[in-house]
Amino acid sequence: MLKVPEHQVAGHRAINGNLGPVIDNLGHFYKPLLDDERGSKELAFYKSFSSDTRVPDHIRRFFPVFYGTQDLEASDGSGFRPHLVLQDLAANHRSPSIMDVKIGSRTWYPEASEDYIQKCLEKDRKTTTVSLGFRISGLQIYESKESGFWKPEKKQVQSFTADNVRLVLRKFVSSNSSIGSNENPDCSLAPIVYGGSAGILEQLLELKAWFENQTIYHFHSCSVLILFDKESVLKGRTSVAEVKLIDFAHVVEGRDVIDHNFLGGLCSLIKFVSEILSSSKESSIKACFMESEKKCYCTNNSNYW
Amino acid sequence: MLKVPEHQVAGHRAINGNLGPVIDNLGHFYKPLLDDERGSKELAFYKSFSSDTRVPDHIRRFFPVFYGTQDLEASDGSGFRPHLVLQDLAANHRSPSIMDVKIGSRTWYPEASEDYIQKCLEKDRKTTTVSLGFRISGLQIYESKESGFWKPEKKQVQSFTADNVRLVLRKFVSSNSSIGSNENPDCSLAPIVYGGSAGILEQLLELKAWFENQTIYHFHSCSVLILFDKESVLKGRTSVAEVKLIDFAHVVEGRDVIDHNFLGGLCSLIKFVSEILSSSKESSIKACFMESEKKCYCTNNSNYW
Repeated sequence: MLKVPEHQVAGHRAINGNLGPVIDNLGHFYKPLLDDERGSKELAFYKSFSSDTRVPDHIRRFFPVFYGTQDLEASDGSGFRPHLVLQDLAANHRSPSIMDVKIGSRTWYPEASEDYIQKCLEKDRKTTTVSLGFRISGLQIYESKESGFWKPEKKQVQSFTADNVRLVLRKFVSSNSSIGSNENPDCSLAPIVYGGSAGILEQLLELKAWFENQTIYHFHSCSVLILFDKESVLKGRTSVAEVKLIDFAHVVEGRDVIDHNFLGGLCSLIKFVSEILSSSKESSIKACFMESEKKCYCTNNSNYW
Repeated sequence: MLKVPEHQVAGHRAINGNLGPVIDNLGHFYKPLLDDERGSKELAFYKSFSSDTRVPDHIRRFFPVFYGTQDLEASDGSGFRPHLVLQDLAANHRSPSIMDVKIGSRTWYPEASEDYIQKCLEKDRKTTTVSLGFRISGLQIYESKESGFWKPEKKQVQSFTADNVRLVLRKFVSSNSSIGSNENPDCSLAPIVYGGSAGILEQLLELKAWFENQTIYHFHSCSVLILFDKESVLKGRTSVAEVKLIDFAHVVEGRDVIDHNFLGGLCSLIKFVSEILSSSKESSIKACFMESEKKCYCTNNSNYW
């Protein structure tokens, strides 16, 4: 039984007669191949990538598993159409907080058509792509069983400023119940989600090390997907946060040059994440300090209790 | 006695009635302040940078020393004009090989005028700026006492392709006497100039580490200058290669964001340099191996000698 993915945060959705991806109950994500060259390029990437022995396993795990292609009835009612069969990245998550971050200070590339370049350039300048080296393309943050997700509208996400991005990256790892309107989120989950040896920061650093050297692919308009289950974190489970790379319709050959555009943007994102992590560490040290002062006070005044 | 710098490889030269920098015999480089905002911006940068305590000393050494400003007769005969008084980076070099590499896959920035942005964008796309994340703006390579320098014309440098850049970076550290026309330079100086604990690669990596963290400045249209004395290297002197940053007329505040554009381009240059270094190591291992095989042959055949 195929259905519309519940946790899709960016891209066209398979609703209201639109063409979009569908999922099954077995952990597969079916992405329709577009008629223009985007479809053939993404398929070519997955084929090349899956068989490329130069890609080490610890890097391969950042990419969705590719199972081939399959003809399926398209969600827009236009009949059968080939779909990429990919791993459904949200399959193992019950209520995942997800952020789609398009990496690079440039989404266009010299080989593209002039129309495409101008369209991208305009959007890159309007969003944080040029200024920050990345832009948030979509997100959902789990609040609670009662209120569900905070999922700002596409228009709102597209108009994010640098300050909005900073705040959203803080909200993403906060436990406050009403996260959307909160201007001062607590970042209490930062040490577990962003930090630690299996956290988001370590995963981004691992990717960075690969991008400093790899000259196989240039990933234009590609996203880093960050996801985790807030409920699992609150239950004390570790290693729950994941980094994945998605959207490869604009990948071109590297031709012995590193992907300096992706790398620069990735380093910028890393800096944002690490600053939240260090400020949350500082505030927890402060909290500990205040806590121990309080204890100290209590001890000194123990006679009064 | 002021004179036109002999070893200037990029930018306007103070000849034929043009406005350009001049030097003295005491190691000073006088750069005329332009009337438009470029002059005031570069002066503002030097003033801010010289007194900024957040810049560590091991990074400060990559920048020319700033001695203030001085009113001097301009080289274009237009009368007195304020000049930046800077350290003459070529002063201690007799016959320096120099390369001016403009870093970043984008020389424009959102705060600039639309005219400037379009002009830069066009040049970035025509040169290797977009594709490689940097472009060579000018260079001279010392050949020998007899033939002097190979110094390709501006037009030729501006039309460098990725392959030209790769070849020039190899020529730069080669000992062949006729370097300009040589399509297969020996790269014999690579281990000393690019390699080693005080070589170009180590210096670029030191800069990279700073750029991964610093959010004070964004260096648009700024160049890495690489220079060394071939004769000193051939005489066996070490620590002769230097990396310097120059041209700060388009530096803007970082506003808590790293300079991802500069960092990406710098990492790309680092990859180019490190590949030349590793291939030159490989070829010297091969040469050693062949040499030892020859010796082996000689030893085995010693009875015949």
